[in-house]
Amino acid sequence: MKTIRTQVKHFQYFYPYTVALVGAAAQGQVNFMSCAWHTALSFDPPLFGVLVSRKRFSHGIVSRAREFTVNFISYERVKLSAQMGRKSGHDLDKIKEFGLRLAPAKVIQSPLVEEAYAAFECRLAEVRAYGDHDLFVGEVLAVHEESGCFNAEGILNPGKVRPLLYLGSDFYITVDQDTLKHVVPE
Amino acid sequence: MKTIRTQVKHFQYFYPYTVALVGAAAQGQVNFMSCAWHTALSFDPPLFGVLVSRKRFSHGIVSRAREFTVNFISYERVKLSAQMGRKSGHDLDKIKEFGLRLAPAKVIQSPLVEEAYAAFECRLAEVRAYGDHDLFVGEVLAVHEESGCFNAEGILNPGKVRPLLYLGSDFYITVDQDTLKHVVPE
Repeated sequence: MKTIRTQVKHFQYFYPYTVALVGAAAQGQVNFMSCAWHTALSFDPPLFGVLVSRKRFSHGIVSRAREFTVNFISYERVKLSAQMGRKSGHDLDKIKEFGLRLAPAKVIQSPLVEEAYAAFECRLAEVRAYGDHDLFVGEVLAVHEESGCFNAEGILNPGKVRPLLYLGSDFYITVDQDTLKHVVPE
Repeated sequence: MKTIRTQVKHFQYFYPYTVALVGAAAQGQVNFMSCAWHTALSFDPPLFGVLVSRKRFSHGIVSRAREFTVNFISYERVKLSAQMGRKSGHDLDKIKEFGLRLAPAKVIQSPLVEEAYAAFECRLAEVRAYGDHDLFVGEVLAVHEESGCFNAEGILNPGKVRPLLYLGSDFYITVDQDTLKHVVPE
């Protein structure tokens, strides 16, 4: 039996999505925010998109920096995700307040999040408004992966890393490594 | 220890993403494809985006239909996902070949996938090219959810439904219901 709603008050049914800390440095300011609305956009060139509300402090920083990093964090960092998502850089220095350790990037000027198990360095290619959010399109200039967390093709090893997944409304979950399957149709 | 690559051959580190069957009906043709590149774009208005390669049969159908449905399927349907993702409507009638059961939508003309645990009916609002894919932006006109699979806010109940998650390169996984957490910062 299905429930149907044509007055769409929420549509959180697309979750779980992985949590990324997205941020940049511009004019002496550094900020990161938790972001679960993101997607790959293109293989070649490699483009990755993140959605940022125009209300967010990161919106201004990434816009000015014209670059950003995308940092995937593990389930063990769920508290950090909640802090970086529910608090705003408008009100406090989140890096200092939550003890976020940063690391230099290879190609761009903005920093990476040290504890990420994987990260992208992106050059801002485009910003486009979709309703109440803006899509920041990043050209992926460099990728970072924690040793042992992925195979040679970049497939996550769930025995080594538990990705943090967001379910909406401050709920989180992670994967069950015993359910990993490789399925190719005949 | 981290590995850094500035020649970006792949960047599958953003997975796992939920798998949706995306499709439409136009001029007597119906087709669906597995899609893992998707994201919410806006709360208000409710906008949802799916990435479709210009090579896909579904690209033409959705473009002509000016509408599409997004159908989330459970881990038990992993074989169906592989079939709907790796085979093309250019070569065969996937609906018939794989026994996909369809159900009428409420608002639009294109059908839903009956076995989905949640689905969106979308009116095509915009198509925009990003590299080798096009972003199809849908205005969510109606949502469908399987009874008991979500709470009142639309948060997935992992004790009731195991969402199918894609890890890239034909690997799949699902969540571990025992890791569900609600975390709000102080």
